[in-house]
Amino acid sequence: MHRPVDQWIYNQDTINWNLKMADQKATNVTWHDGEVSREDRFSILRQRAATIWFTGLSGSGKSTIAVALERALYGIGKLSYRLDGDNVRLGINKNLGFSGADRKENIRRIGEVAKLFGDAGVIALSSFISPYKDDRDEVRELHEQAGIAFVEVFVDCSLAEAEKRDPKGLYKKARAGEIKNFTGIDDPYEAPTNPEIHLKTDEMSIEQEVQIVLDHLQENGFIIDQPLTRADDLAVAGASS
Amino acid sequence: MHRPVDQWIYNQDTINWNLKMADQKATNVTWHDGEVSREDRFSILRQRAATIWFTGLSGSGKSTIAVALERALYGIGKLSYRLDGDNVRLGINKNLGFSGADRKENIRRIGEVAKLFGDAGVIALSSFISPYKDDRDEVRELHEQAGIAFVEVFVDCSLAEAEKRDPKGLYKKARAGEIKNFTGIDDPYEAPTNPEIHLKTDEMSIEQEVQIVLDHLQENGFIIDQPLTRADDLAVAGASS
Repeated sequence: MHRPVDQWIYNQDTINWNLKMADQKATNVTWHDGEVSREDRFSILRQRAATIWFTGLSGSGKSTIAVALERALYGIGKLSYRLDGDNVRLGINKNLGFSGADRKENIRRIGEVAKLFGDAGVIALSSFISPYKDDRDEVRELHEQAGIAFVEVFVDCSLAEAEKRDPKGLYKKARAGEIKNFTGIDDPYEAPTNPEIHLKTDEMSIEQEVQIVLDHLQENGFIIDQPLTRADDLAVAGASS
Repeated sequence: MHRPVDQWIYNQDTINWNLKMADQKATNVTWHDGEVSREDRFSILRQRAATIWFTGLSGSGKSTIAVALERALYGIGKLSYRLDGDNVRLGINKNLGFSGADRKENIRRIGEVAKLFGDAGVIALSSFISPYKDDRDEVRELHEQAGIAFVEVFVDCSLAEAEKRDPKGLYKKARAGEIKNFTGIDDPYEAPTNPEIHLKTDEMSIEQEVQIVLDHLQENGFIIDQPLTRADDLAVAGASS
């Protein structure tokens, strides 16, 4: 099976490399001419991309569910990536402030980055308050135009409960007037009217929340070849594969 | 091996899912508490991320090599993603023009996006003229601070040859004065002084160029478990795996 590298790269035929690369079997890679497509990337990853857009009040639990979901996806070998204040506000959006226009541009850029991740095949987990319906709908529209799934997750928590949690002490500062235009205090949070998923974090456990999102991903075909989100399924899948 | 899902998600122990998920063997996924790390993502993908930053004149062959490299990486089951004018200029950077400040911001944002892709584990292939050394060095610095590899590839082609190729007819327009500040005509191209890779596209075949970049990625540990960049290696690897 010696082939000169020129042919390896440019051979007109479709070659199933599985024949030669035993440890590559799981990805079922085939070779072909033309540009690598989004579907090709999905096949490498054995997943279909989606942007999971968590929206909710500060303290509602967006990051908690995103971290737990990322961990659960990793557990079944699926690649996700979290977009949050740490890596976005300090990076690509570091030249944006908190004016109305800058907040809008902040969400737009996050939406564009998530869309690129989706095109690459990665499940993007976005955790930003994103309080305005119009801004979220624009991100949804961006995704729909690009043919990438957009899963809006309303991380619903009462203001009273979020304020009680106040993990970063921000509500306290907002109440004291040290932070202006704080969502829920002196700036509105526009709840999603028709989100794909509605989590009530003051009534559900984090385990329940993760399971609901995993079920959604599985039922909608984002998890390829591994319908393994419940422990009960593992034995069955193990027996048949 | 039935485990309630709560335990599945939160068990303190490290569980090797390989035991139960036969078709998942190749990725060698293990389960653990804590946030999913960059190294965890590398292990899913069996690759280490890098930003391959192609820089060179318009018409030098940046996109050609990026497309061919993407194809070659796909052929060995590796995930890369191209950042180019089509998906960046029309998306996240659509609110930027061609003033000096906007061009600088254009490159900065591309660098930040590539960095996020690197953090996610994806090999980013960036094809932009990126004519100014300072701008490229800032992107390199961003990557170094984040601990993500930056591979600058000088796609070197004489102006005469690039202008002869003129695939988009842009040199003709620039010579006619219809496009201002065109790199190589009335705006400088600052060649890299110490790029990781120097390709002379008016002397090399595309196959040679791809091989050079693949060799670099392999020799520097970006391709995990599959030292298979040459056809001659396939038989050996196939026998041992």
